[in-house]
Amino acid sequence: MDNGLLVVISGPSGAGKGTICKRLKEEIKDLKVSVSATTRKPREGEIEGTSYYFINEEEFIKRINNEEFLEYAKVYGNYYGTPKREVFKELQDGNDIILEIDIQGALQVKKNYPKGVFIFILPPSLTELNNRIEKRGTDSKEVILKRMQCAYDELDYAFEYDYVVVNDEVEAAVEKIKIIILAEKNRAIRKKAIISKIREV
Amino acid sequence: MDNGLLVVISGPSGAGKGTICKRLKEEIKDLKVSVSATTRKPREGEIEGTSYYFINEEEFIKRINNEEFLEYAKVYGNYYGTPKREVFKELQDGNDIILEIDIQGALQVKKNYPKGVFIFILPPSLTELNNRIEKRGTDSKEVILKRMQCAYDELDYAFEYDYVVVNDEVEAAVEKIKIIILAEKNRAIRKKAIISKIREV
Repeated sequence: MDNGLLVVISGPSGAGKGTICKRLKEEIKDLKVSVSATTRKPREGEIEGTSYYFINEEEFIKRINNEEFLEYAKVYGNYYGTPKREVFKELQDGNDIILEIDIQGALQVKKNYPKGVFIFILPPSLTELNNRIEKRGTDSKEVILKRMQCAYDELDYAFEYDYVVVNDEVEAAVEKIKIIILAEKNRAIRKKAIISKIREV
Repeated sequence: MDNGLLVVISGPSGAGKGTICKRLKEEIKDLKVSVSATTRKPREGEIEGTSYYFINEEEFIKRINNEEFLEYAKVYGNYYGTPKREVFKELQDGNDIILEIDIQGALQVKKNYPKGVFIFILPPSLTELNNRIEKRGTDSKEVILKRMQCAYDELDYAFEYDYVVVNDEVEAAVEKIKIIILAEKNRAIRKKAIISKIREV
C-alpha cells in the first residue's frame, strides 16, 4: 500500500512546466524529485545521483528489458528514463514525489502507475505560446511553426490527464497544483488502510 | 456543458454529514442547496420551496415515472426526492450545489449524474460512532447494535465515492471538503470549453 503521491507535471513544450516545478519544490519542502537515468555524458557541474544517474547504453537497454523504467525515451541519440525502484521506494515511505515530463513520457507513466496524479499544464492561449517561443529566440520560423502545430495537436491529450491547469500566472498555477495535491490525499482509492483501521476500533 | 459542481455529501448515519453541510453553506456563500420534494405534510414553520416542495403522492409518482428525480426514496410511508431540473439549472448557470444524502440516495445520484463529486464522510472510529449515537439517547440498545452493524457494512460503499473524509474534527473536515471543491474545478473532464478556447487564440 503506497502512502505517497506520484505527481506528474506534463504538457506541451513552452507551457512552463519547468518554472512551475521549480516553484513547487521551493514551496513544498517535503516534495521529492525523481532523478532520471541517462546514457548522455555528464556536462560540467552535473552530479551523479543528483542531476542524473549516468549509465552506459548496454546497461540502459538491460534495464529496459528488465522493465526497470516507469518511462523512457531516446532523444538525439541518448536514452533518458525514470527508474521505477527509486520512485516506488519514496511512495512506500510515504513521500510525495514529483515528475516533470513530456506528454509521451507521462502516458507511459500512466500505463505503469495509473494511481499517479496526472496534471496537464497549458499556456493561456496559442498566441501566448507562440510569443514565449519567439522570445527565446532559439528557433527558426519553420521550427516555430512546427512547434505550434505540434502544441495544437497535443491539446487533445489533456483529456488523458486527471487535471488541467492553465499557466497564465505562475503563482496562481502553483497554488492550484498545491490544492490538487492536498485534495488528492482524500481520494477514496487511497483510503483502504484507514477504513480497515476504523473497523478495528 | 455544465460549469457548476454537484457536491454530494454522504456517509453512515451519525458520521456528522448535517453539521458539515451547515458549516459549508456558512463558509461558501455562493454554494446552492438542493430543495427536495416530499409527500410528507408540512410541519410548523416549514416553508414551501425552501424547506421542501410539498406535493401529493399522485404527483410524486407521476414525476418518478417521468424520471424527474436525481434520486428518491420512501421513508416511513412518505416519499422524498431530489428534482433533476432545479439541480441541473443551477449547474448550467455555473453555480455549485450541495446535496446531503444517505448512501442509497448517493448511489442513485451517481448513476444519474456521474460527473458529480461524491464525498463519503466517516466517523474517526466505530467506537466513536457508538458514543455519538448513545449520547443522543434516542435509541434502545437493540437499535444501537443494529445501527452499528449497518455502519460496519456501509463502510464498503466508501470505495464507490471519489473522496473519503474522516470527521474527527468538524472544522478540519470542512477545510478538506473546501479544498476538494477547489481542486475539482481543475479536473480535465470539466475543461473541454477552455481547451477549445485556447485553440482559437
